[in-house]
Amino acid sequence: MAFEVKEKDLLGRIGLLHTKSGVIETPHMLPVVNPRRQPVSPKAIYEDFGCKAIITNAYLVRKYFGESEVHQFLGFPGVVATDSGAYQTLHYGEAVDASSADIVRFQEAIGTDIGVILDIPTSSEASREEAEETVRETISRADEFFDLRRREDILWVGPIQGGVHLDILERSAKEMARRDFALYAIGSPTTVMEAYDFPRLVDMIMTVKRVVPVGKPIHLFGAGHPMVFPLAVALGCDLFDSASYALFARAGRYLTEFGTLRFEDMSYFPCSCASCARTSPEEVRSLPPARRESFLASHNLRSCLQEIARIKEAITEGRLWELLEARSRAHPQLRSGMEVLGRYGDFLEKHSPSIKGRGMFYFDHISLLRPEVLRHRKRLTERYGPPRGKSVLLLLPQPEQKPYHGSELVRRAMAGIPAKAHICLYGHPFGVTPVEIDDVYPLSQFEACAPDAETCEFIVEAVAEYVEKQPYRKVFLVDLAGSGLEWSRLRNVCRGRKRLELMRCKRLGADEIGDLLKRLRKFAKST
Amino acid sequence: MAFEVKEKDLLGRIGLLHTKSGVIETPHMLPVVNPRRQPVSPKAIYEDFGCKAIITNAYLVRKYFGESEVHQFLGFPGVVATDSGAYQTLHYGEAVDASSADIVRFQEAIGTDIGVILDIPTSSEASREEAEETVRETISRADEFFDLRRREDILWVGPIQGGVHLDILERSAKEMARRDFALYAIGSPTTVMEAYDFPRLVDMIMTVKRVVPVGKPIHLFGAGHPMVFPLAVALGCDLFDSASYALFARAGRYLTEFGTLRFEDMSYFPCSCASCARTSPEEVRSLPPARRESFLASHNLRSCLQEIARIKEAITEGRLWELLEARSRAHPQLRSGMEVLGRYGDFLEKHSPSIKGRGMFYFDHISLLRPEVLRHRKRLTERYGPPRGKSVLLLLPQPEQKPYHGSELVRRAMAGIPAKAHICLYGHPFGVTPVEIDDVYPLSQFEACAPDAETCEFIVEAVAEYVEKQPYRKVFLVDLAGSGLEWSRLRNVCRGRKRLELMRCKRLGADEIGDLLKRLRKFAKST
Repeated sequence: MAFEVKEKDLLGRIGLLHTKSGVIETPHMLPVVNPRRQPVSPKAIYEDFGCKAIITNAYLVRKYFGESEVHQFLGFPGVVATDSGAYQTLHYGEAVDASSADIVRFQEAIGTDIGVILDIPTSSEASREEAEETVRETISRADEFFDLRRREDILWVGPIQGGVHLDILERSAKEMARRDFALYAIGSPTTVMEAYDFPRLVDMIMTVKRVVPVGKPIHLFGAGHPMVFPLAVALGCDLFDSASYALFARAGRYLTEFGTLRFEDMSYFPCSCASCARTSPEEVRSLPPARRESFLASHNLRSCLQEIARIKEAITEGRLWELLEARSRAHPQLRSGMEVLGRYGDFLEKHSPSIKGRGMFYFDHISLLRPEVLRHRKRLTERYGPPRGKSVLLLLPQPEQKPYHGSELVRRAMAGIPAKAHICLYGHPFGVTPVEIDDVYPLSQFEACAPDAETCEFIVEAVAEYVEKQPYRKVFLVDLAGSGLEWSRLRNVCRGRKRLELMRCKRLGADEIGDLLKRLRKFAKST
Repeated sequence: MAFEVKEKDLLGRIGLLHTKSGVIETPHMLPVVNPRRQPVSPKAIYEDFGCKAIITNAYLVRKYFGESEVHQFLGFPGVVATDSGAYQTLHYGEAVDASSADIVRFQEAIGTDIGVILDIPTSSEASREEAEETVRETISRADEFFDLRRREDILWVGPIQGGVHLDILERSAKEMARRDFALYAIGSPTTVMEAYDFPRLVDMIMTVKRVVPVGKPIHLFGAGHPMVFPLAVALGCDLFDSASYALFARAGRYLTEFGTLRFEDMSYFPCSCASCARTSPEEVRSLPPARRESFLASHNLRSCLQEIARIKEAITEGRLWELLEARSRAHPQLRSGMEVLGRYGDFLEKHSPSIKGRGMFYFDHISLLRPEVLRHRKRLTERYGPPRGKSVLLLLPQPEQKPYHGSELVRRAMAGIPAKAHICLYGHPFGVTPVEIDDVYPLSQFEACAPDAETCEFIVEAVAEYVEKQPYRKVFLVDLAGSGLEWSRLRNVCRGRKRLELMRCKRLGADEIGDLLKRLRKFAKST
C-alpha cells in the first residue's frame, strides 16, 4: 500500500504516502521548484521550512540540464515529484518537443519518486469536442505508459482531464480509475481557481472524487493559494503542487489565508512567521529587488504550509467544517462554494466519520449542510420509530439547556404526560429530537446562534417530514410567539386541523406546561 | 494631546499614545506582568516579542516589593502601565488594604506611565443597587483623585463601571467623561467575555463609546483573547490588558484567533510563529512543566500580538469589516454579536470613514449592516432626487457587469427609453442604484454571492422605500423568474396596481428589453 489514511474528517484525511525516498504526510503541498530560477533553495525548503517534498518539471529539467539523478541535482534529500511538462503547453503555449515515451523514460532515468505521464491538459476554454479529445489522448497515453514503464519503485500519477465539462471529466475519471495508478490527479483547475470560481471547483473535485477509489490519494494540480486548501482538502484532495508562492512573490503579492495583499500597500505584517516577525513592510521595501522577492516567496510558502498545518490540526480535532465556515468569509465565492456542498450531501454524509466527540457550531443555514445534520435526519426517517405505545406526539420548542430532558420544563412535561404521549423537541440545527435520545451524540453537543430565515424553513420541513413519516394519531405542537416559524407545510402534511393541534404561547412556563398537560390528558382519556 | 489618530476604519483606529516613556501605537495589548511569577520575562516581551508596553498591578507591587522605580524594577525599557489592584477584590475576593489615596500616591512614586485610580469594579452578578453603589463610589474616588495627583506626566485612566446594567453604565460614562482623564476604561467585562456573551459586550462597549469623547482612547479591561480583539477594536477600543496569555498557558491552553485549544490534544501547531515553527506538540509535551508553560505563554502572547497586527493591517486597508465577518465564524456568539451591530448602525455610519477605495464583500444579511450600505440608503432617502423631468421609473434587476450602465442590456434600455423615464437598478447589497450614479463609490465596488432570504426582504424594502419617497407618477418593475423576491410591500406602497406595473420575465434579453421599451413609449405618449 503506497497510501494509508490515519485520520479523517469530512472527506479530508491525514495520510501517509510511501515513496522510495521516504514517507510524506498528506495533505501536502509540493512547492514547484524551478531549477533555472528559484527564490528559495530546495535545501532551505527542506531544512528551514520543514517541507519534505517538492515537485519540478521533468520537461524543463530534460531540456536545460539533461539526465542526472534529480535529488542530487536539486540538492533535495526528501521526496521529489516530477510533472511531465504538459502544463507548459497549456499555460505558456510552448510546444513540448518530447514524446510521451521520452517523458516516461526520462522520469525513470532521473529517479523521480512520483511521476506524471505526459497528459494533455484541458483548457478552461476547450469546447466539448476539444475536451473529449484531450481525454481520449490522455487515456491512450496512459495505456502506452503501462507498456513503457520499467521501474517498479516510482509512484505514477494518472491525470484526469475534461476540465469544466463535468460529464467528460466523469468519464475520464472512470477510465483512469480502471487503470492502476498509485495516485490520481485532477488536471487543469488553475483557471477556475484564478477566477475564484469555487462553486465550479467543488463540482469538479466531487465529480472525480465520487468515481476514483476512496483509498487512492488525489492530487489537485496547480493549487497553491492558502485560500483554496481547506475546501479542497475537505473534498478529499491530498496533494497540491504550485509555483504560486514564487510567482506571486515575483508580482509583489503577499499571500494570506484570507486572500492576496499587494505588498506595496502594506503597513503591517499580519503574520508572525519567521520571515515576518522581526521586520516590517517598510523595511522589506528598502531591500534590493531580489531579496525582496525572496522574502515574499519565503513568507508565501510559510503561509501555505501554515494553512496545511491548520487543516491537519482541524482534521484531528474534528473541526474541519468549522475551518471551512471561517474560510468561507475570505471571499463571497468561497461561500458560494460551500452552498454547492448541498448537492453532495449524501456522499459527504456517507464518507464522513460519525463520532468526533466534539460539539458543532451553528452559524446559519450553511451549517445545516453538515454531515451530522443530514445523518440525524436520515436516521429519523429511515430507522427511527417512537417508543412502543406512543400514539400522541407532543412537540415542544427545544429549551436552551442540553440535554433537553434535564431542563425544568421538559422534566415537568415528562412527569405529567399521559403514557401514550411522546415528547419531541424541535429546533435547529437538528430539526426534531425525540426526548429519549436527546443525549446521544451529537444532538446535545452544539452551540447555536439565532436561526436565519432558511433555517426556520428547515425546522418546519424537518417537523413536517417527521410527522408525515411516523404513525402518531394526534400531534400537539407548541409554537412560541416570535419564533418566526410558519407552519403551513406541517398543516398540509396533517391534512387540515384534524390531526394537528397547534398551540401558540407567548411564553412557555410552568403554567403553560400545566395547561398543556391537562389538554393532553383530556385527549388521552377521550380516545 | 496624549492621543492622536492616524488611520480609521469603522470605529477602529490606529493611534499614537504619547507617554513620558515613549509613544505606543494603538490598538495595543498590554500583557499583564506578574512580578512574582512570570513565564516570559519583561525583557523578552520587549526585545523578542517587540511589545513596547506592559501593565502590572500597583497593589501587588506595593504589597510585596515596596516602592521602587517600576521600569527599573521590572527591567522593562518601554511603557509601563499600572492597574490599581481593584480587580483583585473582584476576582480573587482579596481585600485591598490600601486607601484610594495610597494607590494614587504609590503609582506616582514608582513612576508609572499610565495609572488607574482605585475604582470599585461592578461584578457581573451585581444587582442594580450594588452596581449603582460601585459607580457612585468610583466617581467619588475620581473626584478625590484630582485633588491628590501631583505629577503632570502620568496619563490617568478613568474607569467606567456599571457592568451589564446599561443605563447605569451610561450614567457612569457620562459622569467620568465630564472629568478630564487622559484615557477611559470599561471596567469588568471579563465575566461577560468568559461567557462568550459577545452581544452583551457589544452593548456595553457601544454604551460607553457613544458617550465618551471620540478623541479619547478607550481601554477594555481584561480582554486578552485574540478572538475578542477584532470586534472590540471595530467598536472603538484602543487598549487591552490581560494575563490570559499566561493564565491559559498555566491551564495548558493554546490560544488561536479561532478559539482555545487543549494543548494535550493537539497534534499539529496551526501556527508558524517563532515558538511553534520548529517544533511539534509532541516534542513540547516532553519538556519539563515550567518550560512547557513558558512555551505556551510565548505562543499565546504571539497569537495576541499577531491578531493585533492583522487588525492594524485591516484598518489601513479598509478591510476591518471583512475581518469581523471572518472572525464571526470563530463562535456562534461572535456572529450574534455582529447582529447586535444593527442596533448601532447610525452611530457606526456617522463615525466610519466614507471613502476607503476598496470594494466590499457581501456574504449574507449581516453584510447589510455595513456602514456603506446604510450610508447609501440614507443618502437616497435624505438627499437624492431623480434627474429633472423624470416622472416614470423603470426598475431593472442589476446586471452582473459593473458599473451597470456599461452592460449590454442597460445600454440598450438607456438608448431606447423615453425622455421622461428614469432607470434604476435594484439588487444587493445596495438596494436601489440610480443608473446615473452607478459608478460612484462604492456602488460598483463589491463582490457578492447569492442573497439569503433576509437580503431578499431587504431589497424589496429598499425598493419600496425609494418608490414611496420619490415622486414618480408610474413605476415599471421587471422581476426575473426565480428571484425569490416577494413584492407585496411594494404593492402596498403603490396603493394597489395603479401606480405600479410589475412585469415578470423568465429572462431579460434583447427581446424583453425591446418589448419593455415599447410599453414605456406607449405609456409616455398616452400621458
